[in-house]
Amino acid sequence: MANPNNPLFRRHVVATPFDRLKQACATEWRMYCEHEFVKQLGAGTLAMESFQHYLKQDYLFLIHFGRAWGLAVYKSRDIGQLRQSLDSLKAIIDIELDLHVEFCGEWGISETELAELSESRATLAYTRYVLETGNRGDILDLHVALAPCIVGYAEIGSWLTEQRYTKRLGNPYGKWMDMYTSREFQQAAQAEVDWINTQMEDISEARFHELARIFSEATRLEADFWQMGLMKED
Amino acid sequence: MANPNNPLFRRHVVATPFDRLKQACATEWRMYCEHEFVKQLGAGTLAMESFQHYLKQDYLFLIHFGRAWGLAVYKSRDIGQLRQSLDSLKAIIDIELDLHVEFCGEWGISETELAELSESRATLAYTRYVLETGNRGDILDLHVALAPCIVGYAEIGSWLTEQRYTKRLGNPYGKWMDMYTSREFQQAAQAEVDWINTQMEDISEARFHELARIFSEATRLEADFWQMGLMKED
Amino acid sequence: MANPNNPLFRRHVVATPFDRLKQACATEWRMYCEHEFVKQLGAGTLAMESFQHYLKQDYLFLIHFGRAWGLAVYKSRDIGQLRQSLDSLKAIIDIELDLHVEFCGEWGISETELAELSESRATLAYTRYVLETGNRGDILDLHVALAPCIVGYAEIGSWLTEQRYTKRLGNPYGKWMDMYTSREFQQAAQAEVDWINTQMEDISEARFHELARIFSEATRLEADFWQMGLMKED
Amino acid sequence: MANPNNPLFRRHVVATPFDRLKQACATEWRMYCEHEFVKQLGAGTLAMESFQHYLKQDYLFLIHFGRAWGLAVYKSRDIGQLRQSLDSLKAIIDIELDLHVEFCGEWGISETELAELSESRATLAYTRYVLETGNRGDILDLHVALAPCIVGYAEIGSWLTEQRYTKRLGNPYGKWMDMYTSREFQQAAQAEVDWINTQMEDISEARFHELARIFSEATRLEADFWQMGLMKED
Repeated sequence: MANPNNPLFRRHVVATPFDRLKQACATEWRMYCEHEFVKQLGAGTLAMESFQHYLKQDYLFLIHFGRAWGLAVYKSRDIGQLRQSLDSLKAIIDIELDLHVEFCGEWGISETELAELSESRATLAYTRYVLETGNRGDILDLHVALAPCIVGYAEIGSWLTEQRYTKRLGNPYGKWMDMYTSREFQQAAQAEVDWINTQMEDISEARFHELARIFSEATRLEADFWQMGLMKED
Repeated sequence: MANPNNPLFRRHVVATPFDRLKQACATEWRMYCEHEFVKQLGAGTLAMESFQHYLKQDYLFLIHFGRAWGLAVYKSRDIGQLRQSLDSLKAIIDIELDLHVEFCGEWGISETELAELSESRATLAYTRYVLETGNRGDILDLHVALAPCIVGYAEIGSWLTEQRYTKRLGNPYGKWMDMYTSREFQQAAQAEVDWINTQMEDISEARFHELARIFSEATRLEADFWQMGLMKED
Repeated sequence: MANPNNPLFRRHVVATPFDRLKQACATEWRMYCEHEFVKQLGAGTLAMESFQHYLKQDYLFLIHFGRAWGLAVYKSRDIGQLRQSLDSLKAIIDIELDLHVEFCGEWGISETELAELSESRATLAYTRYVLETGNRGDILDLHVALAPCIVGYAEIGSWLTEQRYTKRLGNPYGKWMDMYTSREFQQAAQAEVDWINTQMEDISEARFHELARIFSEATRLEADFWQMGLMKED
Repeated sequence: MANPNNPLFRRHVVATPFDRLKQACATEWRMYCEHEFVKQLGAGTLAMESFQHYLKQDYLFLIHFGRAWGLAVYKSRDIGQLRQSLDSLKAIIDIELDLHVEFCGEWGISETELAELSESRATLAYTRYVLETGNRGDILDLHVALAPCIVGYAEIGSWLTEQRYTKRLGNPYGKWMDMYTSREFQQAAQAEVDWINTQMEDISEARFHELARIFSEATRLEADFWQMGLMKED
């Protein structure tokens, strides 16, 4: 990526509000997107048990993610926002959740097992942080808390394809990478970035700082989610 | 309907929790279901302007009704409740809202006009009461606040078909009545009654009284909605 | 009032954000502040039964007003906002509510009667609108929904003292007017205006329009509250 | 502990609902109340840095704890619940928070340092879990999520006084223990237990299981809070 501090670069490109969110927590963002779990997954060396542990907790995560989009429907200020939130909700609950259950099956995790899981601390922490932030603030606070997940996974997918060590053939996690590098997922992530950029246009600096803090905390909790998978933490 | 106070009847049939909710506000329930607006609609004598006014406000109502089902998705305690809430949400926003816009078109109300409407007091009062009740309490409080709408419209549809004065042929409001006497709508209303009955099983008397108060207040606000239509009130 | 579009005027005075909220619903604001109930109260000609009806519903209103400040405590983004919200909450519940009960006693309304009241439609509509608006949006949305009450009563108090028809001596409603023209109340209202002005600094036009709509709807529901008192409506 | 299934025992003592909550997560409850942090604190051997880390995060915890009581004010179903919630809110924000700041000062932690702290993961996890549980459910869900903190600290205080290894004289943490063994704190905790017992009277088994799960998860997150202090975790 071009160095945004390069004066030649800055003459032509203005940082979007979303870029500024990432820049405000650049270290946390990199620690999340380039987490050891991600690297080992790209290299195909991640322990199967870590991936399975992650998959199970991600099932529980998806349910709360669905609840978060339900909250976005409620928080909508007009029918346009409502329909957009509903589209995300349907994508999660009607499509992604079923795909996830199927994918878990391929990794030897049965639906019965999924139904009886306990939430790990990292799952509790991240999901409740997002939901509570949405309740405390408005629909934009909620979106910003959700963004590290949606946008981060898209960046991680792209980033992995550029790494030399990423194993393309015979990687047991190839299907997972395909999912997040798919055109649908990349477009959905871009749509989210666009929406946030529109909503953040002309906001005050005080408001920007509130949102930057949310983005940073959510990013950190996402990194913890990788760590939980890697270490198979409860 | 058989008289539930008839001892012969009561020997065989035990009132369900939902029956008890209606009995606890029998007067309000009848004033809502047998409101003058309903009777004139059945007889085909309702002023067209009243029906149009009602249709417009009902459009705004549906949007908040959708928000309420989004709130139910958020409030769900498990994936079963979440999926059920999402089904209701989709029924409102993906199906009923479009049908309503089309139906409004048949009555000379354009989409532009719908997009620019102001909410009448009765719409504000009922919709915010439902949403606030759901926020204050849990998902059962929310359902009980929504029930007078769902179940009431089904009862009104059935009740009208039994009235001597109801005009079946050439009634300008025939299509409206058909909608709420349809098998789909009747089944959806019954499913709602069943769900509430299951949730209210074995609750304490204190809890019953909380819910009965919500049901009664929501019923009264629904009757006000008819009155608003009848009198074309802002 | 000086014409704010007069260039001579504008050279000296810039409209604050709060001024702009009032200007955006100037008609509704006047219909609320100069409502017939208010005028008759000032003139001392208001029917005692209307005032008593208002006092009873205002008791129920105060409880929900207290709940709204509890919500503001929850919604606070920092300890400063939290302490400020708590101060308002204590002012309502620890002081104003007791004074109100005492005042009701002077008008022949017993505590027992207050404890058994039903909420009128206008009370339900306004209180639930405020609370729901606060839940949907953030703490600023909540404050803007509360402002017509706090700031309006202060303006009404001042305005009445300037009207020729206002009866100062022997007015049965003199004590009520004294309460809202008191220095404490006037200062509390000004503090609320100042806080809102600070929060609205540098907000986008889109955000202003959201807030202006809330302010306008809440103002209208406050006017309905006077009307409910005047007409002794359920 | 006596076996509650022993018929001789049961003849005399009936488990209260709150006892049943603790019994349903007996292991988690003991791991929280008898955590290594607690034992070292009682023995006076806890590293000063661990205690200081705990004190700092507890400052942030108290602010969210205050927010939780604000939410309880909002969620109240009547003026009695509202006043009780407000009393707890005032105890936290008007009294305990100031004492905590003073106490931090005695341990060399300045107000400036407190104002600039970042929340550790354990603080984020527990506080947001409590607040989100309160938003999803009703006021009883919220109280049950708060109970491990209030009741647990009282039990920990009492339990420590009974341990042989507890150092009474010259223990640097003596003042902390005094606080939670004080009559005021013990009575406040008992009042919370009594309130929960009253609210849980006659609830259904399904409702009990919902609440038991909340109590268990909150207890586990409280134990994590000790662990965070012990290990000085971010």
